[in-house]
Amino acid sequence: MSRHFLQIPGPTNVPDSVLRAMSAPTIDHRGPEFAALGLEVLRDIRPVFGTEGPVVIYPASGTGAWEAALVNTLSPGDKVLCFETGHFATLWQEMAGKLGLDVEFVPGDWRRGADPEAVLRHLSADTGHTIKAVCVVHNETSTGVTSRVPAVRAAIDAAGHPALLLVDTISSLGSIDYRHDEWGVDVTVAGSQKGLMLPPGLSFNAVSDKALHASRTAGLAKSFWDWAPILAANERGFFPYTPATNLLYGLREALRLLYDEGLDAVFERHIRHAEATRAAVRGWGLEVLCADEREHSAALTAVIVPDGYDADKIRAIILDRFDMSLGSGLGRLAGRVFRIGHLGDFNDLTLAGTLAGVQMGLTLAGVPIDPRGLNDALERLQTP
Amino acid sequence: MSRHFLQIPGPTNVPDSVLRAMSAPTIDHRGPEFAALGLEVLRDIRPVFGTEGPVVIYPASGTGAWEAALVNTLSPGDKVLCFETGHFATLWQEMAGKLGLDVEFVPGDWRRGADPEAVLRHLSADTGHTIKAVCVVHNETSTGVTSRVPAVRAAIDAAGHPALLLVDTISSLGSIDYRHDEWGVDVTVAGSQKGLMLPPGLSFNAVSDKALHASRTAGLAKSFWDWAPILAANERGFFPYTPATNLLYGLREALRLLYDEGLDAVFERHIRHAEATRAAVRGWGLEVLCADEREHSAALTAVIVPDGYDADKIRAIILDRFDMSLGSGLGRLAGRVFRIGHLGDFNDLTLAGTLAGVQMGLTLAGVPIDPRGLNDALERLQTP
Amino acid sequence: MSRHFLQIPGPTNVPDSVLRAMSAPTIDHRGPEFAALGLEVLRDIRPVFGTEGPVVIYPASGTGAWEAALVNTLSPGDKVLCFETGHFATLWQEMAGKLGLDVEFVPGDWRRGADPEAVLRHLSADTGHTIKAVCVVHNETSTGVTSRVPAVRAAIDAAGHPALLLVDTISSLGSIDYRHDEWGVDVTVAGSQKGLMLPPGLSFNAVSDKALHASRTAGLAKSFWDWAPILAANERGFFPYTPATNLLYGLREALRLLYDEGLDAVFERHIRHAEATRAAVRGWGLEVLCADEREHSAALTAVIVPDGYDADKIRAIILDRFDMSLGSGLGRLAGRVFRIGHLGDFNDLTLAGTLAGVQMGLTLAGVPIDPRGLNDALERLQTP
Amino acid sequence: MSRHFLQIPGPTNVPDSVLRAMSAPTIDHRGPEFAALGLEVLRDIRPVFGTEGPVVIYPASGTGAWEAALVNTLSPGDKVLCFETGHFATLWQEMAGKLGLDVEFVPGDWRRGADPEAVLRHLSADTGHTIKAVCVVHNETSTGVTSRVPAVRAAIDAAGHPALLLVDTISSLGSIDYRHDEWGVDVTVAGSQKGLMLPPGLSFNAVSDKALHASRTAGLAKSFWDWAPILAANERGFFPYTPATNLLYGLREALRLLYDEGLDAVFERHIRHAEATRAAVRGWGLEVLCADEREHSAALTAVIVPDGYDADKIRAIILDRFDMSLGSGLGRLAGRVFRIGHLGDFNDLTLAGTLAGVQMGLTLAGVPIDPRGLNDALERLQTP
Repeated sequence: MSRHFLQIPGPTNVPDSVLRAMSAPTIDHRGPEFAALGLEVLRDIRPVFGTEGPVVIYPASGTGAWEAALVNTLSPGDKVLCFETGHFATLWQEMAGKLGLDVEFVPGDWRRGADPEAVLRHLSADTGHTIKAVCVVHNETSTGVTSRVPAVRAAIDAAGHPALLLVDTISSLGSIDYRHDEWGVDVTVAGSQKGLMLPPGLSFNAVSDKALHASRTAGLAKSFWDWAPILAANERGFFPYTPATNLLYGLREALRLLYDEGLDAVFERHIRHAEATRAAVRGWGLEVLCADEREHSAALTAVIVPDGYDADKIRAIILDRFDMSLGSGLGRLAGRVFRIGHLGDFNDLTLAGTLAGVQMGLTLAGVPIDPRGLNDALERLQTP
Repeated sequence: MSRHFLQIPGPTNVPDSVLRAMSAPTIDHRGPEFAALGLEVLRDIRPVFGTEGPVVIYPASGTGAWEAALVNTLSPGDKVLCFETGHFATLWQEMAGKLGLDVEFVPGDWRRGADPEAVLRHLSADTGHTIKAVCVVHNETSTGVTSRVPAVRAAIDAAGHPALLLVDTISSLGSIDYRHDEWGVDVTVAGSQKGLMLPPGLSFNAVSDKALHASRTAGLAKSFWDWAPILAANERGFFPYTPATNLLYGLREALRLLYDEGLDAVFERHIRHAEATRAAVRGWGLEVLCADEREHSAALTAVIVPDGYDADKIRAIILDRFDMSLGSGLGRLAGRVFRIGHLGDFNDLTLAGTLAGVQMGLTLAGVPIDPRGLNDALERLQTP
Repeated sequence: MSRHFLQIPGPTNVPDSVLRAMSAPTIDHRGPEFAALGLEVLRDIRPVFGTEGPVVIYPASGTGAWEAALVNTLSPGDKVLCFETGHFATLWQEMAGKLGLDVEFVPGDWRRGADPEAVLRHLSADTGHTIKAVCVVHNETSTGVTSRVPAVRAAIDAAGHPALLLVDTISSLGSIDYRHDEWGVDVTVAGSQKGLMLPPGLSFNAVSDKALHASRTAGLAKSFWDWAPILAANERGFFPYTPATNLLYGLREALRLLYDEGLDAVFERHIRHAEATRAAVRGWGLEVLCADEREHSAALTAVIVPDGYDADKIRAIILDRFDMSLGSGLGRLAGRVFRIGHLGDFNDLTLAGTLAGVQMGLTLAGVPIDPRGLNDALERLQTP
Repeated sequence: MSRHFLQIPGPTNVPDSVLRAMSAPTIDHRGPEFAALGLEVLRDIRPVFGTEGPVVIYPASGTGAWEAALVNTLSPGDKVLCFETGHFATLWQEMAGKLGLDVEFVPGDWRRGADPEAVLRHLSADTGHTIKAVCVVHNETSTGVTSRVPAVRAAIDAAGHPALLLVDTISSLGSIDYRHDEWGVDVTVAGSQKGLMLPPGLSFNAVSDKALHASRTAGLAKSFWDWAPILAANERGFFPYTPATNLLYGLREALRLLYDEGLDAVFERHIRHAEATRAAVRGWGLEVLCADEREHSAALTAVIVPDGYDADKIRAIILDRFDMSLGSGLGRLAGRVFRIGHLGDFNDLTLAGTLAGVQMGLTLAGVPIDPRGLNDALERLQTP
């Protein structure tokens, strides 16, 4: 009975009004009504990326936009610099390898973001400019760590290196402050099902002039992901092949919700909820996975389970008894952490219910915790 | 952002699948597809009333079903015995007066249910059998007190009195165990927007043979509410005038949800949530309005606000800061209590979020409470 | 497969956006968000009635608003003048009788509207002003005949008679030009499920000052239907008992659709569709039931089936083979006519499909028709 | 007012129940509820393809599935044999070229399907088996011509050639009889937004054992489209990256609708509607584009506009006056044809309305036609 608590770090809870918007009849994607819709969403998607440039919208889920960022800008054998910040960073560099790129993967402990000093070090050493792109996951969905993109940008600049900066914002866009133009990002990769509060099925590439320039000579084979025909058709609000019309209806409504609340207010809300969540975790006497205070994610919190307890069993109890889904530990974190998503369409009382469910689940699983953790969270929530 | 917490004691949160069912296209109310729908809901509505007899469905909200119960069974000047259990009992007897009935209204303190001993006393004294009906509100929505209908029935029987027993279950049906046939109720009045988890717009009369018999000679003027043509048309699944088709779609789905969960499980769930709520209230150091342990409502809890505090100000803070609606004090309770609805489509974590919101709101309003109240509720919720 | 053709004269096809609007979560009917909704629809409903006065909205279907019009304005034994224009006029006067009124029912042949000359004759003869109300069905849903309300008004005025004028617009409001204030109507009765394009479940009384004045002394018993507490609560956007919130969401959207198209354009569209339908009927060589050219309904057309054919069998063939519902002959017209609804959310091609279905059904039923009927309709539709 | 007539050959009209199914809340794509959904749709999608083998479901629109078919089975420089049957066949071979394949494009006149004799000729001549795949568009959406896939298969077999057979069924699947296994197709490409009656956003590859075998050594770079990790995850009902959950809800409902009607009945319905449409076109005195009686599409009909008339102006009149979208002439057919989609969720009366709209539009555009065309179509529709 009653609504499931979908507290994985995405897909997130889709607002009712977005679901309703998506249930409007599909229209002719070559007719004037569609053109108006297309022009509207292509214009209104830009502020959430912090860009005045073009944003390519794919009728595909986020992984596709990873591929699009690579195949549009790079050539076979190009070297890319990646950082092992977690499971998704690992998958992205694997994809780069499969597509024929030469990946330099800087190891990490899955508790920290991409290290700006490592960026500086690698790029400074690359005097021949063989590195063509630096790939950073802004918010690591597997760890709850947010890399400091402005510092990465500064490191690239300090090295005087021409590499492109490709950033994955799949689980941060619309939840955590992000500035494609100001931070000098070349391709921003995003998806619909997290901060944008849509079901999965749309993904995005925000594209800088430099990336656009690179795309003209990039040699990786591409057709579906090719920016050029899309950007050409977008001029009049159309797409070169059938777009995901009903998700675009939802996108229009989701953007309206975000801008009605105000992006700054949205980001503040996420920070507040993340702080309340960490207050609960620490109040319980448990440890947050993210090891650097500067890098706590505002979108999700990964919680380390004490030795001797299985995070997946705790999650199973919580799902069974309280009908709440939490994120599992992925890759090397399997069984050792669970992840609480607190992003997207979310409010204080739903967070309180979420944390109450975690507290009860930990108790039922026998994990020794201090039940005052929840009240610590409420104290944070009582402050605006 | 995110879903409003609608924690008034009705209308309640409507399940998504009920809202979706209601959004199907309206059909011909005189065609074969409708007949099948009509027969199905007229059959399946019976178990929730605990009856094998007919249930009349009105395309009208609950107040209409109050009127229907009276005009179908009584004649101008008939005496009816009513009990001042709260605001809605008061309104119902006012309606009886407006319709030309002679009301004997047994006073009460709004903290207790209809007193079976008073029933016995009044009926025993009425040797001439001038009292034609006893009207009881099963669950007083304004106070969170559930009258003991079986005891009322026993009192009528003990008095050997032929009066009809009319019971309002508007805020109990589908949430609190109820047995029209077993308890010898003659007319049960109900509405769609509480335990049945529908929007407002449907209301019901479950009708005993004795009530049906009375209706044949009842002299109050009636047309819209007249059972006879409705029951005649219902034989084939139809209605004598246009039914509220889309709400009937919703009713079909809501009944499916109730029976899938199982009525006993539904009632147990409501009891558990009511117990957890009282645990929180008492943990905070506050008082529950209901004064008789045998009469605590499983559907809502009315909380007395300490002297010097205004319940409506607390509600306003909670609405403003945490986007939750609570019930106000009605009539003579205005400003002195607030009411927490925990009925209908509801689950443990939503209750936890609700109680967290109340706790934070009380704190922000300066009411001195012990914050361990919420944890007391969680302890109750941890037990199945 | 595909959408059913619901071409009965109501309930009509509900626009998708209205169904979507209705599927929003139910809100607190005593909270500020509801007050804003209430004030909005109570204001915006007025233009479609052609009134600047109050419109009472009931959470009940149209038959209830018939009862409301009578019980608010009349006293037991009051004489009312009614006209036998068809099945629904017959039902309304039956209701008046059941409620204790003294009905004078002017006979009719079910092919014409209320006769203004008869109005003049009866009222002129009633020198003692014992007739308290004249009841007219604006658009007889059973016959497709639209009474000339301004001429009825003129007849009342010519007789210098103080009787109230009560008009049923259940199947005309929002489809056929109607002017409560300008025509001097005292109570206009309407429902949600025809020209207002909503599911059934709301009904209306537009109320003149004179009717309001009458209501203060009207002696029929009333409670649910009583205007006084409703109008009082409406001042702040509320209702005295639970309103049908989700239908009010739909009403807001339906009014938006009507005013976006423009009421004049809506009425013109209905006239065009009615003309095209009559062109088809006459082209087929069949007869329209309405016998007076001044009284053809713009909302539906009743078609007389030639002797020897059963209208219900034709309807059954059309339902079975082409998934289209048509209206049956009601009362004394059973089996002799079928009715084509062309009102509400409707457009040229849906009408063409409707008429094609009727033509094919007549052919399959063996009714001798000229198949050029459909093309005659298209010729009308080709003209704006 | 009223529903738009979306009579382009896809996206098609989405059934209400599919739209409602899609508006259910998104669930955890790694949880047990999703696994059940995944296993169900992965199993139930097979019959519509006529296969007992795996069907890969992409969260992407149909063009992506074209790319997937190529990159999973072929290596850079591989030769593929394509047939110029129309606009989409032209686009697919262009994509093949972009992806690094060597395309042999057999010219055509856009009025006929892929020529089995040409298949035989080219493959027989290719004694060195340099041709690795034959690509055929089953139903050319731009021309309304259905290639005879069994004859193509027979030609490949007659040539004793090992080339893979890749078939695009984007606008035929679920509308026109198709048998992946029986016809020996290796990869069948499909999309959600035509005969499957969903919004765009899902696409499919049905995969033969031979194709699966080829995929193990295929050298084109791939990651997002790679079958291997998808098929592995599908074993337990999951996907390697976020699936388009809400479209999968819709797919489940759409498959239910198709199987409830019965695939044979669905195909018969499409044939009947296509025959009725051709009867209208010929009755008007116009020419159908498809030049081979064996190859008429059951999903759409392309109509040649007489010299001196502009098909796009006719379409604009029809859109403006009758709110109906028709398909434009694509590529070399621009302005010379319009296309009537009669596929997906469609019924007799909607087709009648559609053809009435075309007839009126042609008349208004001044195209000389015989108005008996519509009646010719109705004669066909009167026969089951």
